[in-house]
Amino acid sequence: MAALSENTGAPGAGAVHIRSVGTALPGPAVDNATLGQRLRMPGQWEEWVDTFIGTRTRHLAIDLDSGKPAATLADLCETAGRRALDRAGLAPEQVDLVVMGTASPDDLMPATVNVVADRLRINGVPSYQLQSGCTGAFQAMHVAQQLLSTGAYRNALVLGGDVTARFYDFDVDFATLPPEHLVHYVLFGDGAGAMVLDTQPVPGSLAVRRLFTQLTGLDRAPGQIVHWFGPSDRDSTRPPAEEDYKAIEESVPVMAAEILDDLLDETGWDRDEVDFLLPPQLSGRMTTKIVDLLALPSATEVSCVRDVGNNGNATPFFQLEQLLAQATPGSRAVGVSVESSKWIKAGFAVETV
Amino acid sequence: MAALSENTGAPGAGAVHIRSVGTALPGPAVDNATLGQRLRMPGQWEEWVDTFIGTRTRHLAIDLDSGKPAATLADLCETAGRRALDRAGLAPEQVDLVVMGTASPDDLMPATVNVVADRLRINGVPSYQLQSGCTGAFQAMHVAQQLLSTGAYRNALVLGGDVTARFYDFDVDFATLPPEHLVHYVLFGDGAGAMVLDTQPVPGSLAVRRLFTQLTGLDRAPGQIVHWFGPSDRDSTRPPAEEDYKAIEESVPVMAAEILDDLLDETGWDRDEVDFLLPPQLSGRMTTKIVDLLALPSATEVSCVRDVGNNGNATPFFQLEQLLAQATPGSRAVGVSVESSKWIKAGFAVETV
Repeated sequence: MAALSENTGAPGAGAVHIRSVGTALPGPAVDNATLGQRLRMPGQWEEWVDTFIGTRTRHLAIDLDSGKPAATLADLCETAGRRALDRAGLAPEQVDLVVMGTASPDDLMPATVNVVADRLRINGVPSYQLQSGCTGAFQAMHVAQQLLSTGAYRNALVLGGDVTARFYDFDVDFATLPPEHLVHYVLFGDGAGAMVLDTQPVPGSLAVRRLFTQLTGLDRAPGQIVHWFGPSDRDSTRPPAEEDYKAIEESVPVMAAEILDDLLDETGWDRDEVDFLLPPQLSGRMTTKIVDLLALPSATEVSCVRDVGNNGNATPFFQLEQLLAQATPGSRAVGVSVESSKWIKAGFAVETV
Repeated sequence: MAALSENTGAPGAGAVHIRSVGTALPGPAVDNATLGQRLRMPGQWEEWVDTFIGTRTRHLAIDLDSGKPAATLADLCETAGRRALDRAGLAPEQVDLVVMGTASPDDLMPATVNVVADRLRINGVPSYQLQSGCTGAFQAMHVAQQLLSTGAYRNALVLGGDVTARFYDFDVDFATLPPEHLVHYVLFGDGAGAMVLDTQPVPGSLAVRRLFTQLTGLDRAPGQIVHWFGPSDRDSTRPPAEEDYKAIEESVPVMAAEILDDLLDETGWDRDEVDFLLPPQLSGRMTTKIVDLLALPSATEVSCVRDVGNNGNATPFFQLEQLLAQATPGSRAVGVSVESSKWIKAGFAVETV
């Protein structure tokens, strides 16, 4: 078990550090009133969203008037990546490894990570892009952390982002859409994030004390399915996205509690020693529910979902950017994430050095 | 550099072993005559493909008569994965890690790897799916090998596959298609592969002596682009796939030679000590050209492209399956792969134990 504890970043040999974080958002914040107008919703819709979803604004990589794309995932990741590198004081040619997570790559080939690397002038290193949903940032961090722990690399640029605006179809008659399809337009937002992970600590960086991702899908139907269309099935009438909100509402809080238990067990931290909680970010309302359930008496909630929506693989980067701004030496934080697509548990415990 | 050589599988501590390989193909072999008939091509087309492409047959995950899908990527990966596990004598609950590579996931979410894991009864472990092209099997192997070298896992199931039949549109008037679009229907095939990687050697397994993947894309335009369509751009008229065959014909042989040089340098093997060569598999004709260029005097070519086409992330598994059937204790083999999408070099050197 010695190797395992090294690998997962327990105190001592092999700990990996989050040295910097950068994020990027497309366009202006779109509030519920503006979105409701564009979707031709009646006036009370805005209040309904405020009350039952709790997401106030989001940013979209689409021009709301024309419905045309306004930014690609590569655009957003490039900006976020440059910010993270600048904040770490790391030149592109010093980057040893690139790992990215996304559910919505710009193309099937080339992988967006390689387009971003080229734009940032990173070359000659391994680059990996994970196909991933809500736990994607954790998965990309986890892969990078483990590869760093082999001793073959000094640092890694980890990227994550999503452009769900490609699923927005403003030609639809929204009044006829069932709520479970309409809610997609409310819950999600676009964005990207990046972090520099380093084997060496610098003052103010976050030492990763525990980080895990774990498939928990056996015999469970997917809670979320997102289709892409090829040339042979472009005229398919199946919905592009399907969600089982009942399963999500039931399972995510339970799994979040299990993840927290793992993090406390593995770090040996007491519940009242956690200073910050980065909870799952499906919606403002669900986040509140989960924060209440996890009941960490001394923890400040670090959330972004009310302002930027659930932007998938980008979300944890926004939370970590806020955490870096608030944490002081010795601060302890836990991050909790659940992927409902085929059910993955993920978590991290970090401590400011 | 000690850590680096450990990590890349140099002889001594930390070597990882390919214990078993399994593959899967959909439907019957489709020869050029049958394909030409379906594409309504004139009689001499078959001879043209035989002469200038050199691919004789491929398997397609589509029903040729109806044009409807006949198998999913998850179907093929499940079959290949089960075969690899059976051949290794490994039960699903003994699998510590799953890594998959594909350019054509069944859906954007959930990742196909998690659907396959569920069907194989694998659970409670990390699972990663790389978005990857021709070097995808090497990338998935590389990630798994490095994670195994941390000591946190005993074994990994590595999967790779592609279903390009989703890009086949039999409603098109093929007589009007430019050759660079028509050639897609000839070059590619569908399939999947799987391997069990293990930290412990068993007799007949392949010890990985060197394995690397390296982004080599700086300032190079993508040689291959494959688009997906979302609900908002389903009616886009842009072609689903674009290839720059001139760049591919020029660059792939040069990069293949550079990869071989790396493998020989890192292992210390002489050119005449290589018993088997697993070359890139774009087409039968290109493979012949590259094998001639690499000029390994004692090496037997291990290829599958003439029979199964280029099936992307599956291809190296078919080559490795053939290699395992032919290799004897002490046999040395090198695998060479180039991804033209945004240019990745990849290679492995393995030795039968």
